[in-house]
Amino acid sequence: MQTTKYLLSTLKEIPHESEIISHQLMLRAGIIRKLSSGLYNWLPTGTRVLKKIKKIIRKEMNKIDALEIIMPIMQPSNLWNASNRIKLYGNELFKITDRSKKLFILSPTHEEAITQLIRNEIYSYKQLPIILYQLQTKFRDEIRPQFGVIRSREFIMKDAYSFHLNNHSLVKSYNLIQQCYIQIFNKIHLKFRIIKANSDIMGGHISHEFQAISTNNYDTTENFEYSNIRKKKQNTPIIITKKSSTTKSNLCNKQEKFVKTILVKSNNKCKYPLVILLIRNDHNLNLSKIEKIDIIAKPLKFINKQKAKQLSNKSINILKFINLKCPIIADKSVCNMQNFIIETNIDNKHYIEVNWKDRLPAPIIKNIAHITDNIYSNSYSYSKKNTHKSINNIEIAHIFQIGKQYSKQIKAQVKNINGLPQFLHMGCYGIGLTRTIAAIVEQNHDYKGIIWPDSIAPFLISILPVNMYKSPKVKKYSENLYNLLQEKKIDVLIDDRVLQRPGPMFSEIELIGIPHNIIISDKYIHDNKIEYRNRKYNQSSIINIKEIDLLISKIIKN
Amino acid sequence: MQTTKYLLSTLKEIPHESEIISHQLMLRAGIIRKLSSGLYNWLPTGTRVLKKIKKIIRKEMNKIDALEIIMPIMQPSNLWNASNRIKLYGNELFKITDRSKKLFILSPTHEEAITQLIRNEIYSYKQLPIILYQLQTKFRDEIRPQFGVIRSREFIMKDAYSFHLNNHSLVKSYNLIQQCYIQIFNKIHLKFRIIKANSDIMGGHISHEFQAISTNNYDTTENFEYSNIRKKKQNTPIIITKKSSTTKSNLCNKQEKFVKTILVKSNNKCKYPLVILLIRNDHNLNLSKIEKIDIIAKPLKFINKQKAKQLSNKSINILKFINLKCPIIADKSVCNMQNFIIETNIDNKHYIEVNWKDRLPAPIIKNIAHITDNIYSNSYSYSKKNTHKSINNIEIAHIFQIGKQYSKQIKAQVKNINGLPQFLHMGCYGIGLTRTIAAIVEQNHDYKGIIWPDSIAPFLISILPVNMYKSPKVKKYSENLYNLLQEKKIDVLIDDRVLQRPGPMFSEIELIGIPHNIIISDKYIHDNKIEYRNRKYNQSSIINIKEIDLLISKIIKN
Repeated sequence: MQTTKYLLSTLKEIPHESEIISHQLMLRAGIIRKLSSGLYNWLPTGTRVLKKIKKIIRKEMNKIDALEIIMPIMQPSNLWNASNRIKLYGNELFKITDRSKKLFILSPTHEEAITQLIRNEIYSYKQLPIILYQLQTKFRDEIRPQFGVIRSREFIMKDAYSFHLNNHSLVKSYNLIQQCYIQIFNKIHLKFRIIKANSDIMGGHISHEFQAISTNNYDTTENFEYSNIRKKKQNTPIIITKKSSTTKSNLCNKQEKFVKTILVKSNNKCKYPLVILLIRNDHNLNLSKIEKIDIIAKPLKFINKQKAKQLSNKSINILKFINLKCPIIADKSVCNMQNFIIETNIDNKHYIEVNWKDRLPAPIIKNIAHITDNIYSNSYSYSKKNTHKSINNIEIAHIFQIGKQYSKQIKAQVKNINGLPQFLHMGCYGIGLTRTIAAIVEQNHDYKGIIWPDSIAPFLISILPVNMYKSPKVKKYSENLYNLLQEKKIDVLIDDRVLQRPGPMFSEIELIGIPHNIIISDKYIHDNKIEYRNRKYNQSSIINIKEIDLLISKIIKN
Repeated sequence: MQTTKYLLSTLKEIPHESEIISHQLMLRAGIIRKLSSGLYNWLPTGTRVLKKIKKIIRKEMNKIDALEIIMPIMQPSNLWNASNRIKLYGNELFKITDRSKKLFILSPTHEEAITQLIRNEIYSYKQLPIILYQLQTKFRDEIRPQFGVIRSREFIMKDAYSFHLNNHSLVKSYNLIQQCYIQIFNKIHLKFRIIKANSDIMGGHISHEFQAISTNNYDTTENFEYSNIRKKKQNTPIIITKKSSTTKSNLCNKQEKFVKTILVKSNNKCKYPLVILLIRNDHNLNLSKIEKIDIIAKPLKFINKQKAKQLSNKSINILKFINLKCPIIADKSVCNMQNFIIETNIDNKHYIEVNWKDRLPAPIIKNIAHITDNIYSNSYSYSKKNTHKSINNIEIAHIFQIGKQYSKQIKAQVKNINGLPQFLHMGCYGIGLTRTIAAIVEQNHDYKGIIWPDSIAPFLISILPVNMYKSPKVKKYSENLYNLLQEKKIDVLIDDRVLQRPGPMFSEIELIGIPHNIIISDKYIHDNKIEYRNRKYNQSSIINIKEIDLLISKIIKN
């Protein structure tokens, strides 16, 4: 692909609407664009990433003999009455009436529809077990669409369903699919964990959730912006600094001693523009409780440092609590802490040995944290066993051993080996594709932009010719290399724009996050050399053009 | 794929719900299953065909530098108010309100959404022209969902949009996309024609429609069933027969002398179970007028011979008009005919030199035909120039030179070469994927079932082992061949079911329509031979297993 024929649609500015780093970067890198609340366009770059994930999922699902189908998005309400889920889902279901006043729903999931299909198509135990799946757009009338595609109203899911004669067979397929999902997430280089979860609205007893683990918090926008702020020679806050890496790792090991600082917008009942929330670092914000606090703006709006400055109309240093007049709301668990540590978000600097009324003014005490996090979850609740999750664990997949619930409701039976009718056992298995992409971005970025893993990068390689229209040699070699990579069916982007300056070109490609970048400039090409830059390791090396084939084969191999 | 791990879901019986041959065969061959009126599940075999068409479309669109995107299905109504199409579409638009009572529509097309997107992303003439496309599920609240996926409420479209600085550029891209579509339809071996059409609800002045040409009529179900009926030694009707191919072609050249016989269900105002409709062979049924006839059941239900028998409770020969007591409704144009010909649907036999009150009882005269056919059309009207279309022309694609209509409504401007803002010119281009598949089936079938073109066949090759569990040699060779084809990444289906008898196995594979079939039986394998059957040409040949590689490379080459 040539940039002159492509729609990069990158943004230099940080969009106001973005609350978390993945949302921000997906907007800036031209992955998504908002159409309306919770509704996003996927731009060419985003569509490329989506297609690659779809391909990986299909490949792995097909390996376990799962069969792809497509079921209608629109479903007659009588199916959902049969399962009573029309009531259980309530306002989360988008409902629609056709011209003859018949009620339909826009499906967030297909347990009823697949059970009805299977009831009509499967009649004997000999046809079991069977796993069916689809890659489809789903709908959910979220009360508060947020965080870009993480909590949106229209999203892409891979939903799979398995049917069995007995529970033993169900457990076998369940484990098989669990392994398959592990494969999928490994292939897209996602850091995740699997936790035992509750089934709730889906039915059944055993279920597991796949969570993308994020090292970032809501205030990662702070980290991201810090590089810019630092350049502006910000006033140094009065803080005690621990710089050595030993100390840092010591600090990190004392999770229960850490206190996290989060800024949110206040409402007009509060005379200050923002409110400071303090919770234990290993705890999560309880969003619904926070929204109920009368001085906090609803819907909840997280504030980064830059915004905080704008709001307070002066250069406020949010970490300098002394003499700070904004209200501080601390979770109960924080109030009991002594000699604790507060992160500053600046080069791992921290206040240490902080005590209430000592370094900090007395806070308002509220119950604003919880140990189970469903911030990113869609209506599924979590196991109580899992008490120490990071705030940014994104639910990317959920698998359920449903059992006979739907087959009984929809009367799906098969004949067993004795010729007797028997209700089917069922499993269901979802992967949220669109939010998985957000999770990948949460995990793979730096201050320059996204760092795509090779397997799902919109382009694997970029060719960046420096002043190609001034140097015939640069132009010729760049084009030849482009043609070579095209022939090899490698996803390659060449920046062939006229008057493209090297600086903005590098910045844009880094923002998009193409993993392998080949820079062709007059400086090197006259010595038959090119520069190779690896986005992930931020490494640059000068390579003889004779070795380009070797480089490419190394890239493909990984 | 092994049949034991697959969901063939074929039907031996002709489903009652099917009115036309494609609908019938798509149900019987396990391509689709009805969920609700106008809503269809795509079974594994159907999903495979869809994926192949999608791949072909993507490849051809990418060749002309079109960029794939995904826009939300749900769209805020204000966008559709801006274009006034919320009123123009009227009841055909599915409308939906979210929990905060905001109105949305489920999009049948995306002109407004793409224009808004482009308005925000494209700012300079340098970024033009641009072609964007998506493959997406669309919605339309059809007043009368019919003919399976041809007129359904949820369907898959490839919709493309181009943007330009001027009309000259628009025309250029329009022609490019027209050529691209010709390539696509050629690749899937569809017989089609392009006609100049009206733009109507889409806006603009110039538009062309791609129509799949069908040689079949509504009563092709008759042709299809005939092979079975003949076997039952049906009473020979009193007909005059013309058997020679010369006569046949003579007959075919006299289209205006032909009268078509169509059976429809009556309602309870009629004492007979069915009504016979007669129209000129080169005319089309006017469905809305027929539905208004007081003795005809509403919604209109076409009757095939088998159903006619069931309804009349005796072996009725629908072509033996003499003494037939069912009401006959003839179109005005038929009533004026003399010495005309009525097809019998049996081996090209015909009544010839038929006159009213001579061989036929006096009919009820009604205006039931029309010369322009929008039976299969979705709200687009046709050029009046085209007056002699076959009844079965299915609209598979439509392209429009829209001009500046939407860009003015949505205020999408770019800066031209002089830096002045200018409204964008726009083209839009749709392919109906799901109905294209129906059109392919209409064109490619025989009495045994579907005959898929290689390029979109669910499986390219089948391996049919005869009694494989009785003959170790058959089993071994079949499995080896299966593995070989798998390694070559060829879509292959092996029928490895235990106790599978050859007759039903062949019938099922022929119904599904796999183009290339390799039969491995004890009879031949002991001589190191296999049987190759070509579905399309209905040819069988015995091949030495040494030549199997040659056979496969020939198959792939085509």
